[in-house]
Amino acid sequence: MAANDIHTKCIDTIRVLAADVVQKSNSGHPGMPMGCAPVAHVLFTEHLNADPSHPAWINRDRFVLSNGHGCALQYIIMHLLGYAITMDDLKQFRQVGSKTPGHPEANHGIPGIEVTTGPLGQGISNAVGLAIAGQHMAATFNKPGYSLFDGKVFCFLGDGCMQEGVASEACSLAGHLGLGNLIAIYDDNHIQIDGDTELGFTEDVVARFKSYNWHTIVVADGDHDLAGISQAIAEAKKVTDKPTLIKVRTTIGFGSLKQGEEAVHGAALGDADVAQVKKKFGFDPEVKFHVDDAVYKHYHDVAARGRAAREAWQTQLERYSQSHPQEHAELSRRLAQKLPDGWAAKLPTVTAKDGAIATRKASEKVLNAICDVLPEIIGGSADLTPSTLTRWKSAVDFQKTGSKIGGPHGRYLRFGVREHGMMAICNGIHAYGGLIPFGSTFFNFISYGAGALRLSALTGHQVLYIMTHDSIGLGEDGPTHQPVETLAHMRALPNLLTFRPADTNEVSGAFKVALEDHHRPSVICLSRQNLPSFDGTSIENTAKGAYVLKDAEGGAPEVILVATGSEVGIAVETAAKLTDLRARVVSFPCWPLFEEQPLAYRTSVFPEGVPVLSIEAATTVGWERYAHACVGMTTFGTSGPYKDVYAKFGFTADVIAPKARKLVQFYRDQNRTPEWKVNHVQF
Amino acid sequence: MAANDIHTKCIDTIRVLAADVVQKSNSGHPGMPMGCAPVAHVLFTEHLNADPSHPAWINRDRFVLSNGHGCALQYIIMHLLGYAITMDDLKQFRQVGSKTPGHPEANHGIPGIEVTTGPLGQGISNAVGLAIAGQHMAATFNKPGYSLFDGKVFCFLGDGCMQEGVASEACSLAGHLGLGNLIAIYDDNHIQIDGDTELGFTEDVVARFKSYNWHTIVVADGDHDLAGISQAIAEAKKVTDKPTLIKVRTTIGFGSLKQGEEAVHGAALGDADVAQVKKKFGFDPEVKFHVDDAVYKHYHDVAARGRAAREAWQTQLERYSQSHPQEHAELSRRLAQKLPDGWAAKLPTVTAKDGAIATRKASEKVLNAICDVLPEIIGGSADLTPSTLTRWKSAVDFQKTGSKIGGPHGRYLRFGVREHGMMAICNGIHAYGGLIPFGSTFFNFISYGAGALRLSALTGHQVLYIMTHDSIGLGEDGPTHQPVETLAHMRALPNLLTFRPADTNEVSGAFKVALEDHHRPSVICLSRQNLPSFDGTSIENTAKGAYVLKDAEGGAPEVILVATGSEVGIAVETAAKLTDLRARVVSFPCWPLFEEQPLAYRTSVFPEGVPVLSIEAATTVGWERYAHACVGMTTFGTSGPYKDVYAKFGFTADVIAPKARKLVQFYRDQNRTPEWKVNHVQF
Repeated sequence: MAANDIHTKCIDTIRVLAADVVQKSNSGHPGMPMGCAPVAHVLFTEHLNADPSHPAWINRDRFVLSNGHGCALQYIIMHLLGYAITMDDLKQFRQVGSKTPGHPEANHGIPGIEVTTGPLGQGISNAVGLAIAGQHMAATFNKPGYSLFDGKVFCFLGDGCMQEGVASEACSLAGHLGLGNLIAIYDDNHIQIDGDTELGFTEDVVARFKSYNWHTIVVADGDHDLAGISQAIAEAKKVTDKPTLIKVRTTIGFGSLKQGEEAVHGAALGDADVAQVKKKFGFDPEVKFHVDDAVYKHYHDVAARGRAAREAWQTQLERYSQSHPQEHAELSRRLAQKLPDGWAAKLPTVTAKDGAIATRKASEKVLNAICDVLPEIIGGSADLTPSTLTRWKSAVDFQKTGSKIGGPHGRYLRFGVREHGMMAICNGIHAYGGLIPFGSTFFNFISYGAGALRLSALTGHQVLYIMTHDSIGLGEDGPTHQPVETLAHMRALPNLLTFRPADTNEVSGAFKVALEDHHRPSVICLSRQNLPSFDGTSIENTAKGAYVLKDAEGGAPEVILVATGSEVGIAVETAAKLTDLRARVVSFPCWPLFEEQPLAYRTSVFPEGVPVLSIEAATTVGWERYAHACVGMTTFGTSGPYKDVYAKFGFTADVIAPKARKLVQFYRDQNRTPEWKVNHVQF
Repeated sequence: MAANDIHTKCIDTIRVLAADVVQKSNSGHPGMPMGCAPVAHVLFTEHLNADPSHPAWINRDRFVLSNGHGCALQYIIMHLLGYAITMDDLKQFRQVGSKTPGHPEANHGIPGIEVTTGPLGQGISNAVGLAIAGQHMAATFNKPGYSLFDGKVFCFLGDGCMQEGVASEACSLAGHLGLGNLIAIYDDNHIQIDGDTELGFTEDVVARFKSYNWHTIVVADGDHDLAGISQAIAEAKKVTDKPTLIKVRTTIGFGSLKQGEEAVHGAALGDADVAQVKKKFGFDPEVKFHVDDAVYKHYHDVAARGRAAREAWQTQLERYSQSHPQEHAELSRRLAQKLPDGWAAKLPTVTAKDGAIATRKASEKVLNAICDVLPEIIGGSADLTPSTLTRWKSAVDFQKTGSKIGGPHGRYLRFGVREHGMMAICNGIHAYGGLIPFGSTFFNFISYGAGALRLSALTGHQVLYIMTHDSIGLGEDGPTHQPVETLAHMRALPNLLTFRPADTNEVSGAFKVALEDHHRPSVICLSRQNLPSFDGTSIENTAKGAYVLKDAEGGAPEVILVATGSEVGIAVETAAKLTDLRARVVSFPCWPLFEEQPLAYRTSVFPEGVPVLSIEAATTVGWERYAHACVGMTTFGTSGPYKDVYAKFGFTADVIAPKARKLVQFYRDQNRTPEWKVNHVQF
């Protein structure tokens, strides 16, 4: 088969297969795969350096499908290349339990899918994170004569991604950072779900990316000009001081009777049109899921080149292990996600006599203590560094090569006021491997980045969200900055650890769990205001999720005051006022960790028959799981000095003590004991 | 006093007053007010058309402080102009209960504050909404010889706003829509909280806005060039086919010893520096909160011109009422927020025999029924129109004047894939007056726009969020698109009505409440999948929040199955299987509405002593408030046909019926009745 013929055959095979895949499931998006088959074919067969037999090779080129709805394209190419996606898997597209879900899901048994995409704008922002990680790993581990890290990050994105603010944030930062290892390929097909982009998206995308300091290239005919596509990618690979945007004009659903129309975007073509497509491309309309041997061979040859590249790299690594044994050991440790022995001994601890400090300040102490011994930590703040206190003493800023204010070896990220971008970039950094990223802002601004944070949880990215100013206790900035709903929101997310530590010991405990759990993100909520240090808090207790901080004297407790973070001190004060009752104080820094404890432990903290009063300066929603009555917020907060704000909303021992008595009396009046929540009906 | 002298005096007075205000509260942001005093002075005294004695005048120019942390500037200018902010109010800056909170709060007793800002990027996006609203009102009510609506929207924004994705989304759309009534003034001071913008924000902002189709102007010396500022604003006012960005180079904290540094951004200057500033500007360092009479006079003269302008407009309106009595009556009705008599009679209703339809389809029916009788409805979808079904039959797209696909008289907004921008724009549209906006996307993508949605709730904007594909029931798109945490998140927000209607009757009921409640936003959660219609659902029942849909026969209920939306049908099926138990089914479309019902009603729905089982295809977090056991999600969802997904997670009558029995048995085994949640201890 002639060279051009095989390319055409491959591309048409992808198009036909995409039509088959979506038709069989009768659900999905044929338009993008059929339109992007040429650019994907060129990228994967001529440029992308990866080894399908070792999809986790650390120096592979990364591919991110930011327009994740087009995943049939990626699944098909992965199948052709010999990744662990069989033809049967393709036939199970969008079925429960399949390896080919409706959008690409990373860390769900599909090696080769780098990040979870589909929610638009996330993939390109993850790609920025992958590129940052790649540059940082190169700056850390490459040595003269050794280029262990030099992979590229390729990302497809469409009009939808281009419109999302998160993509704007991440791409602006990528331009600032001069991420020359990032190549974004924009599928400019003029069609979105509502119709032609003329409806609402007429900006000059290329000019916009130039304004961000990106290199830009335009390929006018992405349907046919394979050489042009390949030259554009080759050019982009040579640009090492800037990210590159390649705008490729394509026809959505190329080959379908509905090509170039929005109707081809998100629904199966129908049997007649699938047959028409097959005839048009010279395929037998009666045969489904067909791939010529020549096509497989072409892709398997590509895979073999990838394998050879990886093997050459492996040889290089072996030489490196001899010449740079220390760096090699460090790299191996980090890729194995093994923290250095004894690291946790650095974590600061306190006793009551250490007095009051804000937990954001305790977090700063933790970072100062551990960042030098844990070089895999990389992160920063969304332009709130003096408030979130996240820049450790020895930190160097991550900046472009040649910068006077940092370099790619730096580990402190100046995210700018780009919360959503920050969170998505952190996901990308974690997806690279060898790094533990953190992002930081005020807790309230999770409301800006929740789209990315939920993907941290869904994918199981170990990202630390260091969230300060975590309640009305931030005071004067007022209700626009005071979270009230956010703890409930976080606790409702699966696979996420939300910590609200009460003092330095619990802050250290939160960081310890967060750094040792490589499979879920953590949100660490920290106070702006000073909080007392306690005797009885500890790193070990924090890991249990909840524990008895101060027990009633003289017998079993008659009431339990359960609190988190800044309200633990108020609970202790309240208990001290309850001289007429035996009151226990429970500190409850992390719900899921407590729920993972054995029943016997849980019932030891919350014994049968004892009424529980929760105290938290946030919504009461959710607390009924543990408490028989709740002190919390039912409105938004207000602007004022924090003590005045706390007083206004009744978060003082003087106000709460009578409530505790009222709760106890409520059950005494009824002559009954409260329902035991810990041993409640669970399914 | 010579002309130049008075301007200098005014500007220096603002600077000195800002230093005093922040110093007294020892909290706040002096840098921006001192840097932006010149541009604010020029704008408010030479260009902005408003009447401080009638701040609600509908054709006023709007002013939005997107960099809301600089609100001392706005409060000071409002004070000088004679708005209801006294010098004492300025002295109460950032105190509990004051009219001068830490960031501008609209609808909280401070007439003249148009929208709530502070969370960066929101104000400029609100301004886009205000501009859309202004253009639409002009297209609707202006007639030959009558220019009732011709006000401009001015917006200050800083580097932080420029970095936020929400601003990128809204400004891209503003350029597409050619909003010539929008003038954004960018405080280009090179400083953000972390330091110089060189740290992370080096894009070419002017080029970016040009790429969005904005007119751009640069003022090189915003500290001194008052004439240049004024000319730029004058030029911008003449550009009527595009929004204008005026970039003004300023020195943050002008006059302070720390001018031009990040240290002056967000903390009081200190007494010594305040004294230094006063000396520098020729003020008595011993005197605080001083305003020369000449300054007051200058501003009061400006206010008098505004009053005259409003009075002239009022005269025009009186003529209009004669020549266009019908339009005038309609305008009056809308500004009074009075819905037309009998509008609700248009709402569709069903009975069981009408069979199954998706509630998103029911919502489409509602919109088709009411949008013609409620011309104040304006809204659209974030590029999901064919899925959210929000474009009613007679809809015309809102587009720029001269567009072939719509015009400013259109009421259907093509937001593009810009969820956060959409939600912030809706807040701005509502803030204008006379309009009820809606935005629509998949329910899951509240995670992209929650920063704006929480401000809808905080400010009490009547925005309808029409959120479809509201659970794992969306099926094949998979967990990236399936909300599980979002209902808990929404229920945790104060001042928000979240509806999850079960059928067309409840959809109509949700819209009725949402449209009649002018002081809070509503989120209406709708299914992708078909749901049965019921006998017993009704518009009236929906307004109660929860009600008995199907009661046990033959005596008091032994178990209550409470469900929302798509799970109500499953609850009914489950009850039918429980032939061994008297089961009641409660439909619970809206929590806050139920919580506002009298105790007697609440206890009639959930009687004492009856165990309650909740059934909702979302997190169980929160349901312990009402239920003794919960059927819900504790993980993310999965990709597959929705019936398979429901089966996988146990949302079938066959699986749930034994759970209901287990719950009843749990209490029987203990020989006790369940704790009565409705009459629980509340504080």
